[in-house]
Amino acid sequence: MARQAGRHFLQIPGPSAVPDRILRAISAQTIDHRGPAFAEVGRQALSGMQSVFKTKNPVIIYPASGTGAWEAALVNTMSEGDRVLMYETGHFATMWMKMARKLGLEPEFIEGDWRGGADPERIEARLSADREHAIKAVCVVHNETSTGSVSPIAEVRRAIDAAGHPALLMVDTISGLASIDFRFDEWGVDVAVSGSQKGLMLPPGLSFNAVSETALEASRSARLRRSYWDWEDMLGPNANGYFPYTPATNLLYGLVEAVAMLHEEGLDHVFARHARHGAATRAAVRAWGLEVLCRRQGQESGVLTAAVMPDGHSADAFRATVLRHFDVSLGNGLSKVADRVFRIGHLGDFNDAMLLGTLSAIEMGLGKAGVPHRGGGVDAAMAALDGRQEAPAVS
Amino acid sequence: MARQAGRHFLQIPGPSAVPDRILRAISAQTIDHRGPAFAEVGRQALSGMQSVFKTKNPVIIYPASGTGAWEAALVNTMSEGDRVLMYETGHFATMWMKMARKLGLEPEFIEGDWRGGADPERIEARLSADREHAIKAVCVVHNETSTGSVSPIAEVRRAIDAAGHPALLMVDTISGLASIDFRFDEWGVDVAVSGSQKGLMLPPGLSFNAVSETALEASRSARLRRSYWDWEDMLGPNANGYFPYTPATNLLYGLVEAVAMLHEEGLDHVFARHARHGAATRAAVRAWGLEVLCRRQGQESGVLTAAVMPDGHSADAFRATVLRHFDVSLGNGLSKVADRVFRIGHLGDFNDAMLLGTLSAIEMGLGKAGVPHRGGGVDAAMAALDGRQEAPAVS
Amino acid sequence: MARQAGRHFLQIPGPSAVPDRILRAISAQTIDHRGPAFAEVGRQALSGMQSVFKTKNPVIIYPASGTGAWEAALVNTMSEGDRVLMYETGHFATMWMKMARKLGLEPEFIEGDWRGGADPERIEARLSADREHAIKAVCVVHNETSTGSVSPIAEVRRAIDAAGHPALLMVDTISGLASIDFRFDEWGVDVAVSGSQKGLMLPPGLSFNAVSETALEASRSARLRRSYWDWEDMLGPNANGYFPYTPATNLLYGLVEAVAMLHEEGLDHVFARHARHGAATRAAVRAWGLEVLCRRQGQESGVLTAAVMPDGHSADAFRATVLRHFDVSLGNGLSKVADRVFRIGHLGDFNDAMLLGTLSAIEMGLGKAGVPHRGGGVDAAMAALDGRQEAPAVS
Amino acid sequence: MARQAGRHFLQIPGPSAVPDRILRAISAQTIDHRGPAFAEVGRQALSGMQSVFKTKNPVIIYPASGTGAWEAALVNTMSEGDRVLMYETGHFATMWMKMARKLGLEPEFIEGDWRGGADPERIEARLSADREHAIKAVCVVHNETSTGSVSPIAEVRRAIDAAGHPALLMVDTISGLASIDFRFDEWGVDVAVSGSQKGLMLPPGLSFNAVSETALEASRSARLRRSYWDWEDMLGPNANGYFPYTPATNLLYGLVEAVAMLHEEGLDHVFARHARHGAATRAAVRAWGLEVLCRRQGQESGVLTAAVMPDGHSADAFRATVLRHFDVSLGNGLSKVADRVFRIGHLGDFNDAMLLGTLSAIEMGLGKAGVPHRGGGVDAAMAALDGRQEAPAVS
Repeated sequence: MARQAGRHFLQIPGPSAVPDRILRAISAQTIDHRGPAFAEVGRQALSGMQSVFKTKNPVIIYPASGTGAWEAALVNTMSEGDRVLMYETGHFATMWMKMARKLGLEPEFIEGDWRGGADPERIEARLSADREHAIKAVCVVHNETSTGSVSPIAEVRRAIDAAGHPALLMVDTISGLASIDFRFDEWGVDVAVSGSQKGLMLPPGLSFNAVSETALEASRSARLRRSYWDWEDMLGPNANGYFPYTPATNLLYGLVEAVAMLHEEGLDHVFARHARHGAATRAAVRAWGLEVLCRRQGQESGVLTAAVMPDGHSADAFRATVLRHFDVSLGNGLSKVADRVFRIGHLGDFNDAMLLGTLSAIEMGLGKAGVPHRGGGVDAAMAALDGRQEAPAVS
Repeated sequence: MARQAGRHFLQIPGPSAVPDRILRAISAQTIDHRGPAFAEVGRQALSGMQSVFKTKNPVIIYPASGTGAWEAALVNTMSEGDRVLMYETGHFATMWMKMARKLGLEPEFIEGDWRGGADPERIEARLSADREHAIKAVCVVHNETSTGSVSPIAEVRRAIDAAGHPALLMVDTISGLASIDFRFDEWGVDVAVSGSQKGLMLPPGLSFNAVSETALEASRSARLRRSYWDWEDMLGPNANGYFPYTPATNLLYGLVEAVAMLHEEGLDHVFARHARHGAATRAAVRAWGLEVLCRRQGQESGVLTAAVMPDGHSADAFRATVLRHFDVSLGNGLSKVADRVFRIGHLGDFNDAMLLGTLSAIEMGLGKAGVPHRGGGVDAAMAALDGRQEAPAVS
Repeated sequence: MARQAGRHFLQIPGPSAVPDRILRAISAQTIDHRGPAFAEVGRQALSGMQSVFKTKNPVIIYPASGTGAWEAALVNTMSEGDRVLMYETGHFATMWMKMARKLGLEPEFIEGDWRGGADPERIEARLSADREHAIKAVCVVHNETSTGSVSPIAEVRRAIDAAGHPALLMVDTISGLASIDFRFDEWGVDVAVSGSQKGLMLPPGLSFNAVSETALEASRSARLRRSYWDWEDMLGPNANGYFPYTPATNLLYGLVEAVAMLHEEGLDHVFARHARHGAATRAAVRAWGLEVLCRRQGQESGVLTAAVMPDGHSADAFRATVLRHFDVSLGNGLSKVADRVFRIGHLGDFNDAMLLGTLSAIEMGLGKAGVPHRGGGVDAAMAALDGRQEAPAVS
Repeated sequence: MARQAGRHFLQIPGPSAVPDRILRAISAQTIDHRGPAFAEVGRQALSGMQSVFKTKNPVIIYPASGTGAWEAALVNTMSEGDRVLMYETGHFATMWMKMARKLGLEPEFIEGDWRGGADPERIEARLSADREHAIKAVCVVHNETSTGSVSPIAEVRRAIDAAGHPALLMVDTISGLASIDFRFDEWGVDVAVSGSQKGLMLPPGLSFNAVSETALEASRSARLRRSYWDWEDMLGPNANGYFPYTPATNLLYGLVEAVAMLHEEGLDHVFARHARHGAATRAAVRAWGLEVLCRRQGQESGVLTAAVMPDGHSADAFRATVLRHFDVSLGNGLSKVADRVFRIGHLGDFNDAMLLGTLSAIEMGLGKAGVPHRGGGVDAAMAALDGRQEAPAVS
């Protein structure tokens, strides 16, 4: 096949395109992970991640995908047969639930319609009914990558407290962290799970647990078997910037750079930028006459936007058209919404011109693929970015 | 200043943004430029450049900017006081003329209005009048980077021949080569001048002379002083892939990669892509109600488009607005058109989504800067890219 | 601290210094791990690893350290309370044994003196005594990174067969693979464990299981809880070059490059080079009057050499001296031999001049640190490399 | 050919091996050389070079090889037919002399034996005899790259002053700068010429002129034709960090990094390191029973050492052996000493272990190539590095 000119637009909702600064950082020569120079790298990575999670509690860094950090959250705190309350916000919540089952837990799944975040009231109701406190943890996905909906974590904490329930609050913020606001300490999260390849702008290969004092306490009596994921083994060497086994040194170089970049921009600016791009993208989608999958106002994600295809049109065929003609990668619909939605990632190291380039390619792609739509999406996005009236929602 | 997120859009008409493949290539370790491994690099670079110039004649590679290759073209072929016929297509033609004067030549400058390429008829008329053949060379800029106009080189050759004149044909294709078609042998060019940082997608630092047999012959009697630029010194070692003095090894790595990339895409595809982007950009400019500087039909450049600002509005202030708000660099107006035009580069490693991102930023910037304009430029560009009717020119 | 000039010598027994080609490969932009371009990367990585393990069986690639692949080998094949026969070749064998215990297995540990590889006769004796076949697996470290001793894997397989025992043969070749010969299929290994940062010349962050048909069969009834490490989940998507969760894309780019480099050199050349460097290093150590930790002839490692410090001298103080004065990192003694040995890594992308630079720094460091020794170590190494008589052993 | 493992040792006297930090710096994306972000790069590069030349006078940076900066020094200060006094220290002094002749000057060449630096007494004698001050400049090579001899620049200035002669002092410190001490202002140099690929640790492609007030004054009346090299055109834009034509942006990124690295180490440490490595190398050469080409005590270079081959043995055949067997590149003998000497570069980003690796390869190579020699060169180098008695010179 002939080479396609120009930059690829990696507009899936993660991995996000890695900035050159980070690519250069990870291409530095590997050093001795037991030597004196490493300690500084380790310390910066660990304390940097605390600043990103907004926590004074320990953050554990695994050489692993986000999936590994899901597993770590569960095996460090739970015992065989423990009941965990999980919330069906979409595909990834479902995957985490299935993992809990594989690991020997008893997940209870609050059914959702994939079109919004978790509902704290339903969580509170369920916990209130759990008089014996059989439920050991509440597991919620912060930013559901399969749908583009955000769960209100602070309210989930309030719901747990309102129910007077001791369950741990575990939050998957794999695609939320460093793109939309997350406050581990202030929100009373017990275990947060994240990964490197989204808002952190790194290649995949690192994942994280932030761990509250309560969670650490729980880990001491939790009896699920664990070794690689064991928090306890990590904490000792981490205190000096080291790791119990060989860390992914080069990705840590990138992590240190990424945290620096986030603070150079300012986390609040990062969050505002993602929110603004989310709003502009929704304006475009609606102008095209397509529906935004997330329909709960205020829960639309700044990380990605899932757009619903008109009936009878394949989202995957459309994505293939956009990729072939414009070299723009869009995210596919997963399981329940397979082939019915396409997802536009607008996360990570991103700006207005990149967003408008992306939306232009989609708008042209809708035409090329013969998908019924109206024009004017890019115009609507420009208006939204400009702070002019957002285009009205599809009726 | 806070960090700006996302990729910078380097949309000046060169340097063009360097593709990652090339940046990685130039970051390989430097090797012995006299050792056996180097010969292969040198040979590939030299023969690769022949394929790009479309010539079987020698190409000289200088560790220098394009300006150096201008000088090389003159000092290798001319003697003190020689008369050269040059054509005022814009700022760069003027600069080359001034250089000729500094080097002791007698340039004769055919006046132009900066709104089109060179006119072969005027050249033919002048040469026909030069009965004693005092004129030793005709110097024309192929793609005038300051205006976005293209000169018809093959026709200039025909004009020289029609006048039965022995003058050498020297062509500056610094910003034309590898973006718009150029055929050294077929078009009968004697010396072509080019640089690395435009269609070749490299950082600046390499420049080129392609040299015809006639030009080589002329160099044997030319008496301008030369050493660094001397073709003769180059040709011997070049035959084996070596250079008479230390070459810019790492940029040569990039050059080999660049030539490979051009052929992977196919030169004809590269040219068609640039032409298509030029047309779409002009459609946008006209939709905004702005004038395209080049007004000679068929001579508009695929490399860049210069847009004329409405009276009373500063092009430089506008460019600063676009840079500050959208991190998009545009080219400034030079000398005669300073502050009156801005130039949009659409050359090098570029694609539709990047172009539309660029044009979106300009459209939004026109609003932010309070420049009177109509909307719809991006829409017009999409229509043009789509092969739908190009928007009609501003009346 | 003032900058130290020149290249750092990373002569620990892994991570080994990463070649520039691989560093550049991992710095390529991350792509969509579900898109069409990724499949080729995935396929090349997977089939490449089969060629390195010398197997037609599946190889599993984890985004994880080698420690993770240890865990994967156990949790995929074993059930709570299963007995595994492990062999104390050194620190890493001990760590694997402790992991087995943490995961709920009953390891039986054949005691060793850390000065040689596993003894197949002792394994055969133990298995023969296990009439009820309570032992489910024999776990042996191929190249013990803490001591520089190699276990004879093919003979261990023969010992198991001679005992007519059905136990699986699991081999940790984390630091052996791609440095010393390993033949998964021919030697009848059931599960092999390896990592990226040794002979594969990559940064840490990838690890591997090669899996025999027998091991796969065992995994179907094994009841240890597993999710991230589950082979079954991997095999489906792997068939098309994909992974069930986000892989460490950029390290996979490096892996593809690493496998290409190994085959460009030729695996047999790679092995011969390591063996030759091991012999030269031992010649140096003995010339200095120090003892090589491995004292079983024919089991000395080509990957690293552990040298025993004279009584009363701290190996760690010596290593710090060498690092400070010569910017050469050496490996430390671990647990039982802490501070008593230092380890010289001579693995990965390495050559004679690098080895002799390393040994020179050590020879000078012995002087600076006031360690009693004889000169002539570098001379002895040069003689050994030259094929001249290796210096006679100490005493 | 099979791949050679390990790092190549680029031990020619320039280009020196480029440190990874610099390779990464030059792989950053090219920016607009007329935009606001560039000014900072330009200013840092220009003021950084002043600190390296130890001058408050302007430094001119050319996108060119060192050869170009030779030409620039001459064409900016001289007129057709001007007499210049040059000193035959070796091949490069000869090349500069030939260039002067090509450019229309009348070089007078003080004959030398290629075994030491310039002799200030002979220069003083010649200038004293030049009563009419026909000589316009004295041109001396600081570190003669072809021989490894250093000329005493401060003494040459004293000689000129003692003769009461107004000639400009022009110094080629292409391979001296940033490796051995150079003090433009203190030593009263008028024009210094340097290049990027030696002590500055960059790839080739940048070169420099430092320019005194006197030289600038001279340039105003100098009548050699110049354009690309014209200092005057540079000084205006340089004042704000810009350049009159497109600079080699990516090499400038590397230059900024290089200057930072030199100051992190400390220039005095850099010079001491080179001197120490020169002494150790000479100790090795003499221990082998070979002669050091430079035989004037105190003028031996810290940058490179040229060793004389025994009669009847080809230096080039020997170098090929070392390259083939050990992947170490050595410099060849040039013109008068072609095939009779080999040159060992010990400049740039270099340390003890790299030097000893290099010398080990040479020592083994002498054996492989059948060159009569004694062993013990590496031992002698280690003793010299250690501050122990340097081996006595060959009798």
